[in-house]
Amino acid sequence: MATIVYCSLNKTAQTTVGRCLTSHLKGIASRAPGESGLLPGARWFCRGTSVRFMSHGTAGRFAAGGARRGALVLSGAAAVTVAAAVAGVLANANHFQRAEMATRISLEKKEEEGEILERCRGFMSAPVTDISVLEKRKGDMRTRMEMLIMETQADFCKALEKVDGGTFKVDRWERKEGGGGISCVMQDGKVFEKAGVNVSVVSGYLTEEAAKQMRSRGKVLKGKDGKLPFCAMGVSSVIHPKNPHIPTVHFNYRYFEIEEEDGSKQWWFGGGTDLTPVYINKEDAFHFHNTLKEACDKHHSQYYPDFKKWCDRYFYIRHRGESRGIGGIFFDDLDSPNQEEVFKFVKSCARTVVPCYLPIVYKHLNDSFTKEEKDWQQVRRGRYVEFNLVYDRGVKFGLATPGSRIESILMSLPLTAKWEYMHKPAEGTREAEMLEALRNPKEWV
Amino acid sequence: MATIVYCSLNKTAQTTVGRCLTSHLKGIASRAPGESGLLPGARWFCRGTSVRFMSHGTAGRFAAGGARRGALVLSGAAAVTVAAAVAGVLANANHFQRAEMATRISLEKKEEEGEILERCRGFMSAPVTDISVLEKRKGDMRTRMEMLIMETQADFCKALEKVDGGTFKVDRWERKEGGGGISCVMQDGKVFEKAGVNVSVVSGYLTEEAAKQMRSRGKVLKGKDGKLPFCAMGVSSVIHPKNPHIPTVHFNYRYFEIEEEDGSKQWWFGGGTDLTPVYINKEDAFHFHNTLKEACDKHHSQYYPDFKKWCDRYFYIRHRGESRGIGGIFFDDLDSPNQEEVFKFVKSCARTVVPCYLPIVYKHLNDSFTKEEKDWQQVRRGRYVEFNLVYDRGVKFGLATPGSRIESILMSLPLTAKWEYMHKPAEGTREAEMLEALRNPKEWV
Repeated sequence: MATIVYCSLNKTAQTTVGRCLTSHLKGIASRAPGESGLLPGARWFCRGTSVRFMSHGTAGRFAAGGARRGALVLSGAAAVTVAAAVAGVLANANHFQRAEMATRISLEKKEEEGEILERCRGFMSAPVTDISVLEKRKGDMRTRMEMLIMETQADFCKALEKVDGGTFKVDRWERKEGGGGISCVMQDGKVFEKAGVNVSVVSGYLTEEAAKQMRSRGKVLKGKDGKLPFCAMGVSSVIHPKNPHIPTVHFNYRYFEIEEEDGSKQWWFGGGTDLTPVYINKEDAFHFHNTLKEACDKHHSQYYPDFKKWCDRYFYIRHRGESRGIGGIFFDDLDSPNQEEVFKFVKSCARTVVPCYLPIVYKHLNDSFTKEEKDWQQVRRGRYVEFNLVYDRGVKFGLATPGSRIESILMSLPLTAKWEYMHKPAEGTREAEMLEALRNPKEWV
Repeated sequence: MATIVYCSLNKTAQTTVGRCLTSHLKGIASRAPGESGLLPGARWFCRGTSVRFMSHGTAGRFAAGGARRGALVLSGAAAVTVAAAVAGVLANANHFQRAEMATRISLEKKEEEGEILERCRGFMSAPVTDISVLEKRKGDMRTRMEMLIMETQADFCKALEKVDGGTFKVDRWERKEGGGGISCVMQDGKVFEKAGVNVSVVSGYLTEEAAKQMRSRGKVLKGKDGKLPFCAMGVSSVIHPKNPHIPTVHFNYRYFEIEEEDGSKQWWFGGGTDLTPVYINKEDAFHFHNTLKEACDKHHSQYYPDFKKWCDRYFYIRHRGESRGIGGIFFDDLDSPNQEEVFKFVKSCARTVVPCYLPIVYKHLNDSFTKEEKDWQQVRRGRYVEFNLVYDRGVKFGLATPGSRIESILMSLPLTAKWEYMHKPAEGTREAEMLEALRNPKEWV
């Protein structure tokens, strides 16, 4: 029986709210401190069991073999904890076998989206949108996506807390112009130098020019008096571990809606997951890419090859002539074949984040490393900063948008980085091997 | 008698050329190793005495009091060494009195520009342009400016080597499209974490659009078939010391020429010097700004107030709502009252670099510091990176220009930097005082 202890959360913009998730998988239930409730009449209170059996739903629809598996379905919060525990306990299976099992559980666990309020209990904080609003428009894509990104944040944060032993700092923030977000950051942990998992749900008005820039295909949208009501939401994360043998991971899944002059809605999804190792490890690279490929293949056989290429193109540090990392998948402006199918694809992707990354973390947890290896990691961190500040469209858009929460946008930057003038690894070294792979992107699967 | 030992320098693009300046103020003259000569028939050879008396020239024209001082005029290379030595020897004068004397000597020393070849002997490397070409067009502004920037590089590098005890690594590089540069970098020295002093002299063709972007006033220039021959040159430097009580300094002085369709030349100068301390020290701030003000006041009483404001506006990290540092002066697109006068002003500015900064370095050389002070420095370094990668026009232009030498553009980045999520100094601390000054630029003079 898994019991999660929740806290009442203060919704004040940009104040730090400590999350008192004091117990995982322990039978402790306690009341939260009596802070201001988030819902009128519905306090954000502590509850009991979050592992439950669900008899309905479509579990297995996304499973690799296509066979319906059913049975043990966990609510968001506990699922990953259990998946991680499963991964940790299977002493005879290797990391990637364990990962596969974790994936299977992760995919099966919550096909049925269930009750809003119940699902919210597993989140790092109450959703950005009032639960009452979410309840009212339950079938709306905005609601379904907000629930998915909140769930992805919680799953990932909890898996990271489990391996690190540290706790995420949870900040709720509001945007004057509409909406807000929840930033979860763990800094200087045992395993992670800096881990950030951010959710944002913002709305307001865009100019036609800004709307055009937001779509990679540059579609022209017609607004009322040149202004377009929009809604944008997403989950994004960057994890920088301390050990240079554990790669940095980044993912981002997002949804946009824009209302045109005639009231019609334009919508699209974007996202991706990519890996930035400090040293090449072919087994890790295969596992990472293969996990993504399997998730993609369930939806379209062209998704993985196309989005893998797009990823290599996007995360390219042009002035260095090298990629940021060894890629993964990246897509934007995805609006076909239809909203339901694209959402299912995005959901599959979001749910591969933990099984893509955590097995690699566990595998290298106790790898020893030298000062030289740490230095090379710091140089690569510098390149990461260069990409994020010079090229990343999300960062550029965020920094240029009034009312953005800068600390959430820049939480992707590593805790520490280094710029050595004319750094050049000697031939034949593992550093040179890494650089070669960044200069000539490879097929890992 | 001061004797400088020079080296023959290999002009191969982007190869590292060690500078064998083995002796300062010692009576050693030796032949350089027999590398490929830079000038047909004129080897880049070692020579003797570089302190000399000059009976002609216009020494004193720029001196504060307007009185002609004359007499001891040093050639570029030795001048700063001597100035620094003077500053070091005057035990009874305080740092800033010493600085004033150094300034006076620095300003007086080389009013007369002298023979090209002789002046070149003091440089960190042969100029970018062949000496024979410089000799031929001696009165041309391109020559005069190239000599000034080479001299400024040498003066500053030698003053920094003197205080650090380390040696600059000198890299000559060529640009396929025309021109090249000389990058001097000292990394992980005793005093300086990273010190870079870069000269570049490039030429080629600009599109009308690019030419428009290069001018801050956005003047439209008419090219032959839309293409404009241009020449751009400058010296730029960023010095990041190790000790958090020694501020970072940056300066850049540059000259542009563009030829229009009808053969007429558009030209302008730009530049500035600014200080980025980690902690506020009012005496340092006064000295720095006052030295600049005095240099400006000799040319126009509005220069300092106008260019001080421009500096505060330019070095502004918009997304943080704070300045990069405590400013200094910044100007661009300066083309009046006439070329001669603007050049003189730029020369005055270039020659205040050493007296602006070195006394501050000497003053804090042995200041002790805590881990917390070092951490705050690293956080400020992170902000420096943000400004340089997100806003700096020079960096943006450089990164976007094919054929740029990236290592020279990004040598302005610190060796190490830090991004702490939600870093906020406690009220009443020296860190908070620094932040306050960055949020509300002050008048320091």
